[in-house]
Amino acid sequence: MSSMLVVGSVAQDTIHNHLGTHPYVLGGSATFASLAGRLFAPTKLVGVVGDDFPASATQLLKDKGIDVSGLEVAPGKTFHWEGRYSPDLTSRESIKTELNVFADFHPKIPASHRNTPYLMLGNIHPDLQVEVLDQIERPKLVIADTMNFWITGTPDRLARMLARIDLLVINEEEARQLAGVHNIAKAAKALVAMGPKIVVIKRGEYGALLFENGTVFSAPAYPVEDVVDPTGAGDTFAGGMLGMLTAEDRVDSASLRRAVIYGSVIASFCVEGISVSRLASLTMSEVKSRYTAFARLAHFANDAELAQLR
Amino acid sequence: MSSMLVVGSVAQDTIHNHLGTHPYVLGGSATFASLAGRLFAPTKLVGVVGDDFPASATQLLKDKGIDVSGLEVAPGKTFHWEGRYSPDLTSRESIKTELNVFADFHPKIPASHRNTPYLMLGNIHPDLQVEVLDQIERPKLVIADTMNFWITGTPDRLARMLARIDLLVINEEEARQLAGVHNIAKAAKALVAMGPKIVVIKRGEYGALLFENGTVFSAPAYPVEDVVDPTGAGDTFAGGMLGMLTAEDRVDSASLRRAVIYGSVIASFCVEGISVSRLASLTMSEVKSRYTAFARLAHFANDAELAQLR
Repeated sequence: MSSMLVVGSVAQDTIHNHLGTHPYVLGGSATFASLAGRLFAPTKLVGVVGDDFPASATQLLKDKGIDVSGLEVAPGKTFHWEGRYSPDLTSRESIKTELNVFADFHPKIPASHRNTPYLMLGNIHPDLQVEVLDQIERPKLVIADTMNFWITGTPDRLARMLARIDLLVINEEEARQLAGVHNIAKAAKALVAMGPKIVVIKRGEYGALLFENGTVFSAPAYPVEDVVDPTGAGDTFAGGMLGMLTAEDRVDSASLRRAVIYGSVIASFCVEGISVSRLASLTMSEVKSRYTAFARLAHFANDAELAQLR
Repeated sequence: MSSMLVVGSVAQDTIHNHLGTHPYVLGGSATFASLAGRLFAPTKLVGVVGDDFPASATQLLKDKGIDVSGLEVAPGKTFHWEGRYSPDLTSRESIKTELNVFADFHPKIPASHRNTPYLMLGNIHPDLQVEVLDQIERPKLVIADTMNFWITGTPDRLARMLARIDLLVINEEEARQLAGVHNIAKAAKALVAMGPKIVVIKRGEYGALLFENGTVFSAPAYPVEDVVDPTGAGDTFAGGMLGMLTAEDRVDSASLRRAVIYGSVIASFCVEGISVSRLASLTMSEVKSRYTAFARLAHFANDAELAQLR
């Protein structure tokens, strides 16, 4: 069976939302992505935590079958992010970003991980993303996330990273910012010209767009009635997407579309609980049932019309 | 063959956009909706224009097969709206709204139109929408549009109208405003409780959501690369949707989903030209070809998965 590797942040988050304050809960891009990926395929995590990181958190990841042999423990404190969500959860303000041990992090990929065929580079400094690529054999698929901080702060380093990946997953606003054009179809073309032959644009409650091989796929979002905590939804989406591709062990138009939907499915669960609580309890039977709900949500063409698409 | 009636505004618009100024071009909710509906089914228009309304504009509507026998000509000037779009066309500012003959408009439904089975009440004062309902035999389906101006200005009159229609088509922000809740799934439930058993929420470049009979359908939007003029896209969507339902002459889950997609198809053409220019030249062959593109855009489930949905 194929396997995937996630490199990114492992954090403790303090989240203020409509339900109250949730201090030092488990967070980080690699954490969410691994907890999504492990539902589909063997998943390895590479990151760093401080010596204050609770043993219970490491145990949770292990209990979910995630290989944490690449999770480094460094002297000092774990990366800590504190944020406050607006009452309708559509925006958030960062109160604190304490990098702590993450400030000096350089990913060390264990020898046993260096030929993992599916790789996710979570949203970290593009130089660190490139350091990972320099340590591993060419995977079958490399996906990477990024954010406005690197787009404006280190555009040259970002360009160097983009030239070396296969699939970029990026927020809509950040796609526009990076491409320098508002129209999203034009923005996607501009991003493909920067390197990644596949671009997935995350649109939050509006779903996602997949651009590959000159075609577009529009994935709906599940209209969740009780959103509790959007933290990590984007990382969960990317991790679930890569997990599905890893499980299928092929990357083509049909598998990419299914993967985008499965990523959306897992993300729709993620937001239903604080931190990783819903992800941790999630089962494949729940995932499959919501996949069917997604198919129902998007279904309109009749058999004859669908036959034309083949 | 079944037929549809559209009651709403017929206007002359002055539009400022990235291409320049377009003075006194054809506009109005009933105009766009009729030009969309006529592609599918016999379409009648009821509205008012001033004696300055160009004969060429009336002729255009006639040439497209629209029954304009209910288009009243009153002494005075035609309703005139002037607006300026932002460079990325995502927002607009109203510069002038000159109601002119529209200020004293009371729709008069010709006797020949009173048993039209499919009715669209364009976005006008809710009292005028109710006046139309009082003049006609109960249609098979009544759809209505509204806007923030009536939601905040005349909420009681709006409530009276909502209690008498079958399908409300409304912008996302206005749906939230009218329902008093941000979460869109909850907002739709609140709107259904106000009267219309079917609610369609327009999300612009993010597509549309259809809520009916306890189910949700998410329609994608076509990622148009060269948007020229979004004016009338929402009216076009509603008119195209009703046109398709009129042509099928049945209102059920499957026909509503197809209608929402066909509405989106026509709206995706509408924005490609100034005013009604693209709508006026549009053919059913182009429409069918883009419908297939929509099916391709949204398609992910395989045959076995689709079989489960039946």
